[in-house]
Amino acid sequence: MPDERRDIHELPRRAGALLASLRQRRPRVHCITNGVAQNFTANVLLAAGALPSMTISADEIVDFVGTAEALLVNLGTFDAERRAATEAALEITAEARIPWVLDPVFIDRSAPRAAYARKLMEWEPDVVRLNAREFATLSGTAADEPGAPAAFALAEVLVLALTGAVDEITDGVRRLRIANGHPLMGQVTAMGCAGSALLAGFLAIEDEVPVAAASALLVMGVAGEIAGESARGPGSFVPAFLDALHALDDEALMARGRVS
Amino acid sequence: MPDERRDIHELPRRAGALLASLRQRRPRVHCITNGVAQNFTANVLLAAGALPSMTISADEIVDFVGTAEALLVNLGTFDAERRAATEAALEITAEARIPWVLDPVFIDRSAPRAAYARKLMEWEPDVVRLNAREFATLSGTAADEPGAPAAFALAEVLVLALTGAVDEITDGVRRLRIANGHPLMGQVTAMGCAGSALLAGFLAIEDEVPVAAASALLVMGVAGEIAGESARGPGSFVPAFLDALHALDDEALMARGRVS
Amino acid sequence: MPDERRDIHELPRRAGALLASLRQRRPRVHCITNGVAQNFTANVLLAAGALPSMTISADEIVDFVGTAEALLVNLGTFDAERRAATEAALEITAEARIPWVLDPVFIDRSAPRAAYARKLMEWEPDVVRLNAREFATLSGTAADEPGAPAAFALAEVLVLALTGAVDEITDGVRRLRIANGHPLMGQVTAMGCAGSALLAGFLAIEDEVPVAAASALLVMGVAGEIAGESARGPGSFVPAFLDALHALDDEALMARGRVS
Repeated sequence: MPDERRDIHELPRRAGALLASLRQRRPRVHCITNGVAQNFTANVLLAAGALPSMTISADEIVDFVGTAEALLVNLGTFDAERRAATEAALEITAEARIPWVLDPVFIDRSAPRAAYARKLMEWEPDVVRLNAREFATLSGTAADEPGAPAAFALAEVLVLALTGAVDEITDGVRRLRIANGHPLMGQVTAMGCAGSALLAGFLAIEDEVPVAAASALLVMGVAGEIAGESARGPGSFVPAFLDALHALDDEALMARGRVS
Repeated sequence: MPDERRDIHELPRRAGALLASLRQRRPRVHCITNGVAQNFTANVLLAAGALPSMTISADEIVDFVGTAEALLVNLGTFDAERRAATEAALEITAEARIPWVLDPVFIDRSAPRAAYARKLMEWEPDVVRLNAREFATLSGTAADEPGAPAAFALAEVLVLALTGAVDEITDGVRRLRIANGHPLMGQVTAMGCAGSALLAGFLAIEDEVPVAAASALLVMGVAGEIAGESARGPGSFVPAFLDALHALDDEALMARGRVS
Repeated sequence: MPDERRDIHELPRRAGALLASLRQRRPRVHCITNGVAQNFTANVLLAAGALPSMTISADEIVDFVGTAEALLVNLGTFDAERRAATEAALEITAEARIPWVLDPVFIDRSAPRAAYARKLMEWEPDVVRLNAREFATLSGTAADEPGAPAAFALAEVLVLALTGAVDEITDGVRRLRIANGHPLMGQVTAMGCAGSALLAGFLAIEDEVPVAAASALLVMGVAGEIAGESARGPGSFVPAFLDALHALDDEALMARGRVS
């Protein structure tokens, strides 16, 4: 497929251009996310150039989401107030056509949370970002069954961002794989949550959803690699990651991007 | 105005003395603040010498605020539980004459939050700390309209701490401007929120409210400047800021303070 | 008491073996903890090798606790949702015999919180970790009254982990004291909370409760000492602590452990 090969070849450059655009346009990204991830997620968005907001109050969220350019819904530590806020927020995104990302954290650990994630699918997320265990719970098929991610993306009319040692991004027709990253990314909390938020930020500035999603994950992976080179462990990795993300440019993305 | 010139001249030295007093007296500062800011705010108070507490449960807050020396009410991620706790807390501060600071985060983004901030003004905060957009929403006048901050402070009988590239502190009669700080302070989350908490800490040990408020903002700005000299980006800025705040002394405040 | 002397002598080596086992077995530790501590607590568990989860939603918690190997209940910022979740969680731990740790943060500041902590004692925590002020509130006796900790542990049939400059761990019969640590541990927030979570992690892999508890506190203390040697203040102490915890081995524990 020539289109796919062009996608692969061009992704690092396009990701660099999108990152530059993010820094210039500074989109507002509203995040309904868990208490573990809120601070780091806000700092990741700021380091990349986006403007985070985080309220979970149902009374306020309509105004916040209505003036945002993208929304993240992350199901970690999901309480009653966050559920009410999410439903109010999704009415706004549907009405105002604001792109949104679903991150169904840990649905493999909780049947009610999995059921809630399935209910949220009716609101048609632009992207679902999850790991292999969460994919298996959401789709009912193993992530490594050939064609399973593509079939799910096609059936649900969305872009699937399946993250792991290698990330896979697919809309069911096109597929991009990203092999960047660093083992320490799995040894600090909220790295996946923050990646989903950055993904929402990229959706705010790029209509081609697979490119936006893959660009965000490439940016996360390359920043992680750079941070891993200077970190002395998971503690120093966190500030090093934010520093690397803040300093990232298209040169580093093109030199380091491992896209296939 | 000779008084104002003396204020300006003496502020760095007074701020240094107040910081030393904070470290010695270790006032208890209760913070009703948002989930994004809680951890960093607690660490800022501890690094400066104050003792933070953070519960937002309405059942408990009466005991916590009743044994605190100052209160911060920050409206970021403001949910039902925090609203109930706030009203319970403000009954205690009014009764026991405990100073309190209002930080009406993001009221420019949400009409219900702005309405709630206006309602809280009836409880007569000692200081309101906000940025220019929030000031415009709260006061109905632009922050750069000549005399607007002073008029608002006079009308509301409070000290206004309007923060930005240059901070302005006024009670309507006296005015102090602080030009310290570093661009990275705007590229990490919760820096303003933490500044409001430190301001509450200074109110706990100094009755002259404009001096307490200006001292806290000078301490924040100088610590930010020092941190900015060694930080490699927003990630390493956060620990560097806390280190600088912890090590700050009156010598650094007098050498670096840019007060006018 | 020869048993006690063997305990003392062997603790550093046993703590090293347990830490190695934690890294290999990666137990799931569910934490009902406060918003200030959630992020740091998750990162401490990950740096040590355990797998944290943090939901506080009563609907979900049954599934999370039912598939965890240990539970922490920390009473900081304790709201209605966390109380409901705690009671649901403790029914599971009782039924499935999952060990759990109670950390009654700041009960000395709030009568309703102290009453709630006493109520939770009926659910028979395996370990209660607290400081001297919290001990006095919970037990009604001063922590430095001779024999008070042992008497409380015996009466309540639990292991008491009383932390301070020197930590004391007792089941009423045996007693271990740990003199490791660093002053900066008291100048960053959530260090005690994270220690309680790590303690829960050690309970997941070791049935001998006093040894598990003392090992976790020894690991915290030695990591803190190592971090304190390179930290420039409380800000850089946090990442240095996580790095030290991640790199900690039995050699360092045996060389540095100060057990009596």
